[in-house]
Amino acid sequence: MKTQIVLASASPRRQELLRQVGIAPLVMPSHVDESGIGGTPEQMVMELSRLKAEDVSVMIAGGSAGDFRKEELAPENTVVIGADTVVSVDGRILGKPGDEEEAADMIRLLAGRRHFVYTGVTMIFLPSGERVTFAEGTEVEVYPMTPEQIRRYVATGEPMDKAGAYGIQGYFAAYVKGIRGDYNNVVGLPAARVCQELAARDLF
Amino acid sequence: MKTQIVLASASPRRQELLRQVGIAPLVMPSHVDESGIGGTPEQMVMELSRLKAEDVSVMIAGGSAGDFRKEELAPENTVVIGADTVVSVDGRILGKPGDEEEAADMIRLLAGRRHFVYTGVTMIFLPSGERVTFAEGTEVEVYPMTPEQIRRYVATGEPMDKAGAYGIQGYFAAYVKGIRGDYNNVVGLPAARVCQELAARDLF
Repeated sequence: MKTQIVLASASPRRQELLRQVGIAPLVMPSHVDESGIGGTPEQMVMELSRLKAEDVSVMIAGGSAGDFRKEELAPENTVVIGADTVVSVDGRILGKPGDEEEAADMIRLLAGRRHFVYTGVTMIFLPSGERVTFAEGTEVEVYPMTPEQIRRYVATGEPMDKAGAYGIQGYFAAYVKGIRGDYNNVVGLPAARVCQELAARDLF
Repeated sequence: MKTQIVLASASPRRQELLRQVGIAPLVMPSHVDESGIGGTPEQMVMELSRLKAEDVSVMIAGGSAGDFRKEELAPENTVVIGADTVVSVDGRILGKPGDEEEAADMIRLLAGRRHFVYTGVTMIFLPSGERVTFAEGTEVEVYPMTPEQIRRYVATGEPMDKAGAYGIQGYFAAYVKGIRGDYNNVVGLPAARVCQELAARDLF
């Protein structure tokens, strides 16, 4: 029996990462209020990933899954994946920038030093309801950047929809000296760890 | 004056990495005999990158640069980039596999442990003739793999044109636990270091 993976996220980068490893996910964005979640970066992203995956699981169970055909969403062979990513630097947590000025502030904060990227993931296996939640951390070291390089990078528009205001898989690759951990975790989903969890259940 | 980057390599992945950071290279594959180069992995890839970049520099200087228009190759504003990548594990150096059986042998060797990927780069700045050569190393940790997973991975065909028989930017991402160093160096070109060298000369 083929397993259907449902991605509880509208992020095109997370979809692309799953396709890269041969998984064609159904995409069902969750509607979760992301405000007011506290704790460490790891706790935050795990909690948000759990809320997202649960929200979509309830949609599937309740039959309110939008335009999808019922047979695509038979709960007896579905894995729902929720994920959330933040950047942590110097005790501050960076989400997506609100405008270009904030994006430039974030890049200035990251240039010439190391920071951490955390992605929290929750996988809900239906119909058993079994779930796993974990957070993966990756250290990223950025080269020093001149004010002109920061200005040019922000002007590309790339920072605006990304946690920490950069895309390691885009132009910003020019400024990433190295990482320690899973690269795809920085892109937005630790795909290898997700595959390990699937493989442990004979689903990959 | 705009600088033209010439990539002395037919690798589509190296071209793609340069485009990712906003550089549109001219592609002029070198014709270098790669056999008989010895030494450590770092020495090997540096020497091969130097031979490749010099071969193409000579082609440009001699006007035998194939179909390119002369004004595209004005030597007064050209940087030639040569690169070579190998995988090193347990004292063995892995290049591209000769057939599927050899690819499977390589993946078996890499599964469940750490190895290093080295890319050597030579940049020749024309017309001064100034050159830099360096090697960048990245440590890669691969999850354990079952015989069935190795068989399925080799069957994708992805290993056949790649040093060490895997593409970290392809399906193999499912099995990469983490890295230490520059991800793009594993793909085939340490693009950030290349950009740093260009920026140090006001060319990026």
